[in-house]
Amino acid sequence: MTATAKVYLVGAGPGDPELITLKALKALQQAEVVLVDDLVNPALLAHCPQARIVPVGKRGGCKSTPQHFINRMLVALAAQGQTVVRLKGGDPFVFGRGGEEMLALRAANVPYEVIPGLTSGLSACASMEVPVTHRGLNHGVTLITGHTQDGEPLPWAALVATQTTLVVYMGMQHLPEISRGLIQAGMSPEMPCMVVENCTRPQQRAVVSSLQAMPYLAHTQQLKSPAIIVVGEVVTLAKTTQQTQDWQDQLQSWLSVANAA
Amino acid sequence: MTATAKVYLVGAGPGDPELITLKALKALQQAEVVLVDDLVNPALLAHCPQARIVPVGKRGGCKSTPQHFINRMLVALAAQGQTVVRLKGGDPFVFGRGGEEMLALRAANVPYEVIPGLTSGLSACASMEVPVTHRGLNHGVTLITGHTQDGEPLPWAALVATQTTLVVYMGMQHLPEISRGLIQAGMSPEMPCMVVENCTRPQQRAVVSSLQAMPYLAHTQQLKSPAIIVVGEVVTLAKTTQQTQDWQDQLQSWLSVANAA
Repeated sequence: MTATAKVYLVGAGPGDPELITLKALKALQQAEVVLVDDLVNPALLAHCPQARIVPVGKRGGCKSTPQHFINRMLVALAAQGQTVVRLKGGDPFVFGRGGEEMLALRAANVPYEVIPGLTSGLSACASMEVPVTHRGLNHGVTLITGHTQDGEPLPWAALVATQTTLVVYMGMQHLPEISRGLIQAGMSPEMPCMVVENCTRPQQRAVVSSLQAMPYLAHTQQLKSPAIIVVGEVVTLAKTTQQTQDWQDQLQSWLSVANAA
Repeated sequence: MTATAKVYLVGAGPGDPELITLKALKALQQAEVVLVDDLVNPALLAHCPQARIVPVGKRGGCKSTPQHFINRMLVALAAQGQTVVRLKGGDPFVFGRGGEEMLALRAANVPYEVIPGLTSGLSACASMEVPVTHRGLNHGVTLITGHTQDGEPLPWAALVATQTTLVVYMGMQHLPEISRGLIQAGMSPEMPCMVVENCTRPQQRAVVSSLQAMPYLAHTQQLKSPAIIVVGEVVTLAKTTQQTQDWQDQLQSWLSVANAA
């Protein structure tokens, strides 16, 4: 391994190519190889025209590169003396499996540096003008995944009792269980809830409604991954888009029909 | 109000001036006035030499500008047709009271834009090479403040039961209560814990120890605000600095003496 070999574990941020840090940009500009997730905005690769680009996506349900293969590739490239950027969507350490890659690099004695990025859950809230913490409304914010590794239910009662805003990553496939779990644990069915799809990208879509109504709305509006689910009083502060208003009106009319039936 | 008047609520990131986004940088470059918190790294103001700088710090325990005064100033400057950047440490919406400023701008019909920043709690973890989420170790991460607005105890039992990494902001004055609260709620006294002072700045200091020992260590090492407290299994993955190792050795020798007495 030459003296210059190094791996940068870099957060690309939530999608908007301007929501990347100066530090990440500098790493990209020095990179000889960039291993890139498929959730990363390809526009960011304009910052590293000199680099070889290796796509290593592992999007839910699609063809993917196994994690251990990525780990081995990072170590092997560094052993060749390459300056490597591992560019990950959001933040490498928030549901990004960056820890696993870091441990592989440590085990192989490869010099590395972690450059954090804006995590998509918090950015989704900012993009909808929802302050995730707000004095008097909550104690903070909890970032969780929509499912546990072992398939066990999440600790819904505890999550409700923390009195924090809940921000759920990778939860769209489990939205009905999430909604039901929280309501059965005592959260109000009317608790404000939003889903933000493709956050901070031009194609961002969002629906603002209630915890109870959200699974139905997400289904009818065909909201898909990647999306962030946010549950908490602070969602009442979301900017109301015309689209959201239309959906709310549509929901109200459906509910009227259902109630009248 | 002229057509160009606008207020940008901008996250400056955790301290390292390279951990700011390109979007925030562009806002600074356009600003005519910048209202800046005292937790913001002054080095960032090199990006806006054209702007008038108004310090509006409100550091705990020191002289401060009341929030309602800042809100009124933002509205008044926009009414004069100024392009204003409100530059806040970390992220405006994570314990930054950015929501309160946004609501004041909304109420006054002032055009505004929210530009998120890296929040110091997550950045502190990245700087110590601690992945806040790690498969098999936790369900996610909870960001909380060290005290409630009304002085009521935090919901410790719920926080323990979430099985998330706990990241505590503004908690140094309450570190003994936090440690005791979590242990009394069933968390192991040996749960790994770290305190990161001045995260991502050259003067960053950190102590890695256990939940039980941390109040004592923080006191003897004179760790001070601004600092982030992190509690969770993932802290075992922290890079071990020489300084930390020295402190651990010192603690062990103290404990031996105490046990022998």
